[in-house]
Amino acid sequence: MDIIEIIEHKRDGLALTDEEIHYFIKNYVSGEVKEYQASALLMAIYLRGMNDHETATLTDEMRKSGDVFDLSDIPGLLVDKHSTGGVGDKVSLILGPMVASCGARLAKMSGRGLGHTGGTLDKLESIPGMRVILSEEEFKKQVTNVGMAIIGQNERLDPADKKLYALRDVTATIGSIPLIASSIMSKKLASGADCILLDVKYGSGAFMKTLEDAERLALTMVNIGRKLGKNVKAEVTDMDQPLGMAVGNNLEIKEVIDILKGRGSEDLRNLCLDSGSVMLVQAKLYEDEEEARKALIKNLDNGKAFEKFVEFVKAQGGDTNYILHPEKFEVAKHIIPIYSSKAGYVNRIDALIIGVSSMHLGGGREKLDDVIDMSAGIVLNKKVGDEVKEGELLATLYTNKENTEEIEAKVVTAFDISVHKVIKKKENLLIQ
Amino acid sequence: MDIIEIIEHKRDGLALTDEEIHYFIKNYVSGEVKEYQASALLMAIYLRGMNDHETATLTDEMRKSGDVFDLSDIPGLLVDKHSTGGVGDKVSLILGPMVASCGARLAKMSGRGLGHTGGTLDKLESIPGMRVILSEEEFKKQVTNVGMAIIGQNERLDPADKKLYALRDVTATIGSIPLIASSIMSKKLASGADCILLDVKYGSGAFMKTLEDAERLALTMVNIGRKLGKNVKAEVTDMDQPLGMAVGNNLEIKEVIDILKGRGSEDLRNLCLDSGSVMLVQAKLYEDEEEARKALIKNLDNGKAFEKFVEFVKAQGGDTNYILHPEKFEVAKHIIPIYSSKAGYVNRIDALIIGVSSMHLGGGREKLDDVIDMSAGIVLNKKVGDEVKEGELLATLYTNKENTEEIEAKVVTAFDISVHKVIKKKENLLIQ
Repeated sequence: MDIIEIIEHKRDGLALTDEEIHYFIKNYVSGEVKEYQASALLMAIYLRGMNDHETATLTDEMRKSGDVFDLSDIPGLLVDKHSTGGVGDKVSLILGPMVASCGARLAKMSGRGLGHTGGTLDKLESIPGMRVILSEEEFKKQVTNVGMAIIGQNERLDPADKKLYALRDVTATIGSIPLIASSIMSKKLASGADCILLDVKYGSGAFMKTLEDAERLALTMVNIGRKLGKNVKAEVTDMDQPLGMAVGNNLEIKEVIDILKGRGSEDLRNLCLDSGSVMLVQAKLYEDEEEARKALIKNLDNGKAFEKFVEFVKAQGGDTNYILHPEKFEVAKHIIPIYSSKAGYVNRIDALIIGVSSMHLGGGREKLDDVIDMSAGIVLNKKVGDEVKEGELLATLYTNKENTEEIEAKVVTAFDISVHKVIKKKENLLIQ
Repeated sequence: MDIIEIIEHKRDGLALTDEEIHYFIKNYVSGEVKEYQASALLMAIYLRGMNDHETATLTDEMRKSGDVFDLSDIPGLLVDKHSTGGVGDKVSLILGPMVASCGARLAKMSGRGLGHTGGTLDKLESIPGMRVILSEEEFKKQVTNVGMAIIGQNERLDPADKKLYALRDVTATIGSIPLIASSIMSKKLASGADCILLDVKYGSGAFMKTLEDAERLALTMVNIGRKLGKNVKAEVTDMDQPLGMAVGNNLEIKEVIDILKGRGSEDLRNLCLDSGSVMLVQAKLYEDEEEARKALIKNLDNGKAFEKFVEFVKAQGGDTNYILHPEKFEVAKHIIPIYSSKAGYVNRIDALIIGVSSMHLGGGREKLDDVIDMSAGIVLNKKVGDEVKEGELLATLYTNKENTEEIEAKVVTAFDISVHKVIKKKENLLIQ
């Protein structure tokens, strides 16, 4: 077997055998297969595709390329959650305490933000003292005792994905369903949870632009889970506006607190309830989602979900004073209101524009080594479906930067305001 | 403009613009565009194709990537010839003296053999003293005065092709018509001739396996010539048996001498006459091919073509005693007859098997730095259409190696002998 033959097979539209996929991943990680050979194969995969069996095998080989976490000594079915990334997506931080307060255990490894999407680790670090690096022992202990832990990915986790992702990034081979699916799932499967809930976003602020593509990706990932013997479900959700009201690190933590106290915006609360109900059934803690949902609402109302969040923050070294008194969070020097120049109804809020603007205000990274301003970002004052009067507040920018006129002008363009009210059919799916 | 965008465009099936192709070649040769990016683009080109305009632009950019020969101070229209490579293909060495004896001037840069195909330079070097490296001045002077020169390719000629070819070789992107066409044509166009005659081979011993593929390649190259203002014609010829009787370096030179003396096998002589007639018309020395053919036959008969070959060998430092007395050429230690085990008619002689066997006997290179045994090779005693009796001689092997039983057994399998005589329709084409 040699790599040229393997490239030829995929180039000619054949399905790769298990042995060929094993050979490729093993020898690519070791450096035997060269970057230029891997990129030719990636382009062939991009254009020729992979069937479900190939995709699952690729995922499994990538998973096994590095450390694989064994969390089997933690009691109960462990749950994990992954979103393909959106704007204002702080769901994990709300969902974790919600389901943990109902008896589930969330063991999550997370990433940092880049470009217009934020990262869960960055948001956590806006809480002073918060540690996102725990030893394996600490991680297991916390998941067992507190019911949740969220940490950064181990450096030795899935080296095949690290190498492949960096290569795909510079060879125009990112947007391939089997490559995206195997990249996400190999990391999730290596992190050791029993049940995985995926949230596949679609729309302008999301990685998948259309419902169809998001559905294909979700189906592919659920299939990988089935073939590799894991309980995987996937939601497909709309990103045609940012999620909730806040975009930016400590602004989002404040919104997390709001929701956990039973307040906050409807879309975000609902998505958390939807996701939480699925997860509690996956963990076999409830028979059906209806019942699980009631339990989750109860714990939002009675403060138990919020208490769990405080317990989690404390366990990872965070200063809980900030959680109990969110007014302590640093507030940006400049607070800039954005007004509407016309009247009507908000039809759409371009999440990509909001995400990029928040990044430019200091709230995100353009390059991997940029430093984030934890207080920077955008709070929406209107959401899709809201009525707007001329001169009314649409959004508020938070920044420590000067000369933000260009960003202000850009944010206005994110709001699509029409004379008629457009009621959007909800197109969220659950694939199980 | 950046390379990722260019890869995306080709990946998505768009035609690349002139600027994009210019950017790619310029920055790939300089090292700005990485090998792994080039290989992703090559795979996208392999799978998405290129239209005639893109292919011509790619060819032109490759041509301009290094030295471009200006031979315009040589009087008359210069002719050049290129074969996509076959087994026993010594046509250039016969054709050169033939057309030069009729007043044409052949200025040819040639390559070395690898694998089952021989190289014109190696064959020339089997004549003791022969020099294949001439200065530009010497080359021009010889073409002007003798009417022909055949030399090795300048190291600074077409660096884009050198880099791209090496990369295609290890990324399964060799067999793409636009990439093959641009590779051949960019070198030919950089070498400065006015008229180019291409011989595109098809069959088991050739690069193109089918008539259809060979025709597509030929058409693509003729189109490149048209778009770049050169007189290019292409023959598409059968390689379902080796060309002529001899395969192997000094064995082929002896066959060249035979043909130039008006003897030798019909298929080889005819191909040389066909090609020569086209070339003399291209060079505007004759009005039509009929007339040109008569002149060529005349010069084979009256010895002028042979005299021109002697003059050419002398001009490039070769010992003409070998040409005048071919029995002086070194003869291999072992001469091994191969007999037929059955009776019938030769239906096909697998050129690939004959080529590989000749290489294994010492007549070719497996790797670039292998040393060739100039006396090794195979002489066919039967050709397609010939009747064979049981126990009759099929071929003769020449080698200095011991223990060649395996090769002998292999050579027998190259001969497809059937009870019925199959008369093959000639499927050679001329594209102009």
